[in-house]
Amino acid sequence: MSDYDYDFFVIGGGSGGVRAARLAASMGKKVGVAEEFRYGGTCVIRGCVPKKLFVYASQFIEHFEDAHGYGWSVGETRFDWKELVANKDKEITRLEAAYRKGLSNAGAEIFDSRAELVDDHRIRIVSSGKTVTAEKILLATGGRPDDSHAINGGELAITSNEAFHLERLPKSILIAGGGYIAVEFANIFHGLGVETTLIYRGREILKNFDMDMRRTLHATMEEKGIRILCGEVIDRITRSADERLDVITSGDRNLKVDEVMLALGRTPNTDGLGLEAAGVATDGKGAIVVDEYMRTNVDHIFAVGDVTDRVQLTPVAIHESMCVIETLFRDNPTRPDHDTIATAVFSQPEIGTVGLTEDEATEKLGEVEIYRAVFRPMKHTLSGRQEKMVMKLVVDGQNRKVIGAHILGPDAGEMAQLLAIPIKAGCSKEDFDRTMAVHPTAAEELVTMYSPTYRIKDGVRVD
Amino acid sequence: MSDYDYDFFVIGGGSGGVRAARLAASMGKKVGVAEEFRYGGTCVIRGCVPKKLFVYASQFIEHFEDAHGYGWSVGETRFDWKELVANKDKEITRLEAAYRKGLSNAGAEIFDSRAELVDDHRIRIVSSGKTVTAEKILLATGGRPDDSHAINGGELAITSNEAFHLERLPKSILIAGGGYIAVEFANIFHGLGVETTLIYRGREILKNFDMDMRRTLHATMEEKGIRILCGEVIDRITRSADERLDVITSGDRNLKVDEVMLALGRTPNTDGLGLEAAGVATDGKGAIVVDEYMRTNVDHIFAVGDVTDRVQLTPVAIHESMCVIETLFRDNPTRPDHDTIATAVFSQPEIGTVGLTEDEATEKLGEVEIYRAVFRPMKHTLSGRQEKMVMKLVVDGQNRKVIGAHILGPDAGEMAQLLAIPIKAGCSKEDFDRTMAVHPTAAEELVTMYSPTYRIKDGVRVD
Repeated sequence: MSDYDYDFFVIGGGSGGVRAARLAASMGKKVGVAEEFRYGGTCVIRGCVPKKLFVYASQFIEHFEDAHGYGWSVGETRFDWKELVANKDKEITRLEAAYRKGLSNAGAEIFDSRAELVDDHRIRIVSSGKTVTAEKILLATGGRPDDSHAINGGELAITSNEAFHLERLPKSILIAGGGYIAVEFANIFHGLGVETTLIYRGREILKNFDMDMRRTLHATMEEKGIRILCGEVIDRITRSADERLDVITSGDRNLKVDEVMLALGRTPNTDGLGLEAAGVATDGKGAIVVDEYMRTNVDHIFAVGDVTDRVQLTPVAIHESMCVIETLFRDNPTRPDHDTIATAVFSQPEIGTVGLTEDEATEKLGEVEIYRAVFRPMKHTLSGRQEKMVMKLVVDGQNRKVIGAHILGPDAGEMAQLLAIPIKAGCSKEDFDRTMAVHPTAAEELVTMYSPTYRIKDGVRVD
Repeated sequence: MSDYDYDFFVIGGGSGGVRAARLAASMGKKVGVAEEFRYGGTCVIRGCVPKKLFVYASQFIEHFEDAHGYGWSVGETRFDWKELVANKDKEITRLEAAYRKGLSNAGAEIFDSRAELVDDHRIRIVSSGKTVTAEKILLATGGRPDDSHAINGGELAITSNEAFHLERLPKSILIAGGGYIAVEFANIFHGLGVETTLIYRGREILKNFDMDMRRTLHATMEEKGIRILCGEVIDRITRSADERLDVITSGDRNLKVDEVMLALGRTPNTDGLGLEAAGVATDGKGAIVVDEYMRTNVDHIFAVGDVTDRVQLTPVAIHESMCVIETLFRDNPTRPDHDTIATAVFSQPEIGTVGLTEDEATEKLGEVEIYRAVFRPMKHTLSGRQEKMVMKLVVDGQNRKVIGAHILGPDAGEMAQLLAIPIKAGCSKEDFDRTMAVHPTAAEELVTMYSPTYRIKDGVRVD
């Protein structure tokens, strides 16, 4: 037993913090964990989970439309936003309880309080004013949507946090941003019948994704009726007499909408955390600086997840926590592996992606082979929906390894998850080719593209 | 140029025949292909494709139900069977035309006629009575549903062939069989509102699939309202006075239904094909006997697909045809690879499977690890649907290779397709473990099951 109140104290009850606290407690360590808002963190409370539930909600209108081609007549449909929000909240509450139960079953002590570092071993529990000590500390306080001060009238806008709890569904919305949060919410609101405009500074939405996916999703969203303004930003927001919002853009456009949502990036939650008192270093953006083991500059203080502002994904935070536990309590120093992380954009259609994009591979390698299929998903042959599915494999022309896979279409996220296994394992295009097709599926295209669509040599497309 | 009318003649215009004819023709060979019914074969005309379209049609009622939990009210819905059949037929006609176009673009000569062997180089085109000669011949005549003579009154029943064209949707149906065709049609008819009973001789549906999947699908189908009678068969069918059918079962049950559908296996199409005249050997069931290169006992006559009664799957027939082309025309003798074929049952929920079942692995290996997850798909947290998803990995305990994957739930077919890549490539459980999750997906369970659910040693479950 150490001389401290706790062997391990975790600040932040999100995906990373809860996993670390639970694992350490289940090993018999004396563990405390503090969360100022709700257990589950961004992912469960106002991120991945409620987002995906909203995505499901927003897809029904297309199911109703698609039914016609299959012989179904559907009577009048109505959507009740308040009911969706209430049902979603009930599920989130259930999940939060499950997180708490996991912690207490493992034997961790739960604090429903903000916690701040007093020094490098002491933590103040803000709700009680009590100070506790801990031998080892994990900082897992996550991040939050960037605030809106840079925009004139930005205080009139909401962020994704508020989008989950709007009193009423707006008739029209302007979403600023080109990342996955902006794109997903644009599709959600559109699917729920909201007149939706996306405005983004860059030339094309979804920076860092494969350009094929970006362009095709952009075109598909526009065909659905989502307005997308690229190369343009919000200049000023004012409240108009009719309680709606007047937005002036950098392109001198004047837009009148019910809501403006900003999805312009996220900020690490380090304000007032006591990092200075504890001697923990941050970078210019306020993110906690960690080494390859997730160790801060203070030897016994670690940090994981969004507060380190590296890879902002739930599974990565969990993985980092599992590595920290290995390093701290199992005498097995373990570096998180951030290489080849599959990810999904739950737009409609979805994007699923893993490994290098075509552009990245072209820049990095002398010879690249691109295998590409564009087709109408079978379901839409009868539904009449004009959406195309795109599948693309990026292959290293020299060693024949599949180094990237990019999918736009139904279930692309599920597909990216499973494609990540052979790609991470270094499988070759021959491994894909010798896999028998499953018919009729969409994924069978990925194992039946026997000849390259084109090749790239030294950065130039050659055939 | 050979002394024959054709370098290559293909009898049968299904998946296997069309692929072989098209490939050979595109290589400049003089190719003829004959089909007595419609180009596209079982898969396109009365198998995989129309089946999957019917599956989509039958899923809408669940979409309508699921919508409620997401805040949607759906007015009265109605289903028009004739419209579905007509729309399906239009799509099948489009696909058939695409098959024909592929053949003629490649330069193959198309015969819309039955063709029969006169001897080992001569083929009679039945519609014209003309006889042509060919240097090499491919038999790809496929199979058909077993006929019903074994059942007293079996002529009153339909098979899957007729199910695609019923004049009206029955109010009730009895489906005999426990294979994937019987199970898929039971789910289709149930989803379209038909009172459905499945009757099967065996103890559990879907012989050869993993027992976990079989039992869970059985239970789920029953919960939906499909009646399943195992260990029982139809004894007699009679037409009753009200034009419905009276069925007596081996268990002395008396069932009254509108239709009986038999899905009791399939028979190779070799009757009257002239095999004897050509000297081509068949087995006791009438299937053409082939060696590992798909060559019959006659050196220049090959056979692929269902007529060989081995693996009755479209992608396998296509693969076999591609191998035959390599062997015959590219001086590259190639054996089809029938090892580790992923497959799907488009039941509701779906089954996707690849590699060994738990029972097969237990029998074959000294040490087996089973990783198993059972959970409610996220969509159903709000829909309220009580269906569970099951995922299972079978791992060789000695070399740690993942040798089987079995999934029951939404998109299981797509998942099996992609899991087949690492499993066929011999990836290990460690390769799965080091793959980062994509959240929230269902497939992430497959890369986050870090500890075995149980182990089996020498056939006995040990923990």
